[in-house]
Amino acid sequence: MSELRQDLTTREWVIIATDRARRPQEFTATDGGKKAAQLPPYSETCPFCPGNEKFTPEENFRINQVGKSGPSDWQTRVIPNKFPALSPKSELTRLPDHIFNRVNGYGYHEVVIETPFHNRPLALMEVGEIEKAIQTIRGRYEAMRADPKVRLIVVFKNHGRAAGTSLEHPHFQIVGVPIVPGGVRSRIEVAERYYDDTGNCVYCAVMEHEIKDKERIILETEYFIAFHPFASRMPFETWIMPCGHITSFGGPQPDLPSTLAPVLKQVQAKLYHGLNDPDFNLILHTAPLADEDAPYYHWHIQILPRLTLQAGFELGSGIYITTALPEETAKFMRDIPVN
Amino acid sequence: MSELRQDLTTREWVIIATDRARRPQEFTATDGGKKAAQLPPYSETCPFCPGNEKFTPEENFRINQVGKSGPSDWQTRVIPNKFPALSPKSELTRLPDHIFNRVNGYGYHEVVIETPFHNRPLALMEVGEIEKAIQTIRGRYEAMRADPKVRLIVVFKNHGRAAGTSLEHPHFQIVGVPIVPGGVRSRIEVAERYYDDTGNCVYCAVMEHEIKDKERIILETEYFIAFHPFASRMPFETWIMPCGHITSFGGPQPDLPSTLAPVLKQVQAKLYHGLNDPDFNLILHTAPLADEDAPYYHWHIQILPRLTLQAGFELGSGIYITTALPEETAKFMRDIPVN
Repeated sequence: MSELRQDLTTREWVIIATDRARRPQEFTATDGGKKAAQLPPYSETCPFCPGNEKFTPEENFRINQVGKSGPSDWQTRVIPNKFPALSPKSELTRLPDHIFNRVNGYGYHEVVIETPFHNRPLALMEVGEIEKAIQTIRGRYEAMRADPKVRLIVVFKNHGRAAGTSLEHPHFQIVGVPIVPGGVRSRIEVAERYYDDTGNCVYCAVMEHEIKDKERIILETEYFIAFHPFASRMPFETWIMPCGHITSFGGPQPDLPSTLAPVLKQVQAKLYHGLNDPDFNLILHTAPLADEDAPYYHWHIQILPRLTLQAGFELGSGIYITTALPEETAKFMRDIPVN
Repeated sequence: MSELRQDLTTREWVIIATDRARRPQEFTATDGGKKAAQLPPYSETCPFCPGNEKFTPEENFRINQVGKSGPSDWQTRVIPNKFPALSPKSELTRLPDHIFNRVNGYGYHEVVIETPFHNRPLALMEVGEIEKAIQTIRGRYEAMRADPKVRLIVVFKNHGRAAGTSLEHPHFQIVGVPIVPGGVRSRIEVAERYYDDTGNCVYCAVMEHEIKDKERIILETEYFIAFHPFASRMPFETWIMPCGHITSFGGPQPDLPSTLAPVLKQVQAKLYHGLNDPDFNLILHTAPLADEDAPYYHWHIQILPRLTLQAGFELGSGIYITTALPEETAKFMRDIPVN
């Protein structure tokens, strides 16, 4: 018998099809696996490798390696996307229409090269390196946030071909958008309504019950918890959430990079070693900029391993069918040893 | 410069990245193409081919070929899915919880085998055969609708591996769900609000303006129009919509199969010949059963060719980036000759 479960934070449902359930280890990537381990540390044709800076648009941010300052001595580096979806080069032009509403493509689309090493994904980076990557992302987040025409900042990572990337060199992307899309607004409204009705943050409520239930938790620190949500949409979907109630990823949070880095490292290492370096998307959900001071939202990271395909039922209904139980996948992940 | 466009019926936005725009013909499938043409009309290992009925669960509906009545003389055939996501075999059990809300997997999950021929997708079927397929789907829709525990019926088709199917033999699926998911409710709410504010159906309004603009229309009959929507989420996304204002796919509409069949055939044939048989999902959007009499919704078909991948940005923001202009793809499709 299968089971429908509802995500309290989105009101979306999933179907957990236990009749065709697979054991956690059956999701292990079979396409060669641990792809990073098979790559060289440097590739001369990779525009993101040190020494090849001339192949990218002009950089707008970098953190150099400690004590070094040469043109290729960076630890992290940010460049505009070579084929940007949005660009700040023209004025923002809204073309409101009661039927065909349009805005020109004003905004930002940047690439964060988080490591000089071609073959060092988050799972294999040192915690200190990940900390610098997070500092870099936060730096660009703040820069985009200073532009009042930006309404939402989306930070994400596509890892592997099934996740939509063709570039092997580890990188994040940051997009500053001049609108708030319906699906994001809907999350905010669900959180707002919950806050109105109960006086609490819906994410805090979920977190409290996940901690009490224990069985879907991957790891817990003083500052963050990582878990496979009750209504996971995909096998091994993982959320990383600050334990404190914090609306936005932006703003003054000096301890954020150093407290998040070890958690991100552990979660990534468990995925890498436990599932043989699966393709995944990582998404940072944070409040739209106009809602950053609202008390009802709670920023978090969602990791979606791309182990299964979305078909017509998912696209049409928004109901995801998954063949893994988050209670089982979380236990599997807890048991993967990483340092 | 790229452009953001909003879908009036969902409030979702897309980014049309014209900087990396591709010409319509560049989307032609390159994986061998016209896959159906390379298949045999019958496969002895296919559970959906005539003569192999014993490999499927017991059928619950069929239309026989005219004048025939043997066990394998069917034109269309419906069976429960062998690995159902939902099943009517147990009682519906709601397990309401203020945090972890659950319902057991009560519902229906059926497969409509729309042709006895292994190698005859909609694009290659006769109009009369498609009419029988639509009659069959409507028959099962009505059967599920008679169960008051079903709240929404989702009809869809996955064509090709990228669309999530592993079975080559053409088939639709029908799922009867005991809940209404957030995304579907949100569409209804957008339509309801538009109706409250303007007195009109939002889909009728869009259709009226698409007809006036002409440039995104693929074809028009007295009963249906097919077009590439203004805010297409994917290249060659196609909507087929009844010209009359009709809330639900269900209910007494005796002319529906005969008026829809030629339109579905033409649209499918244009995709098949124009893009070399691309993988696609077809989704039938119709009102939840409790809203079937509401005046503000309007059923329609959405076809999503799977020519591109959804990456982290799409999954995180709901904003799709597309590299095709619907005005150009629609012209390309209009110009594909089919009988």
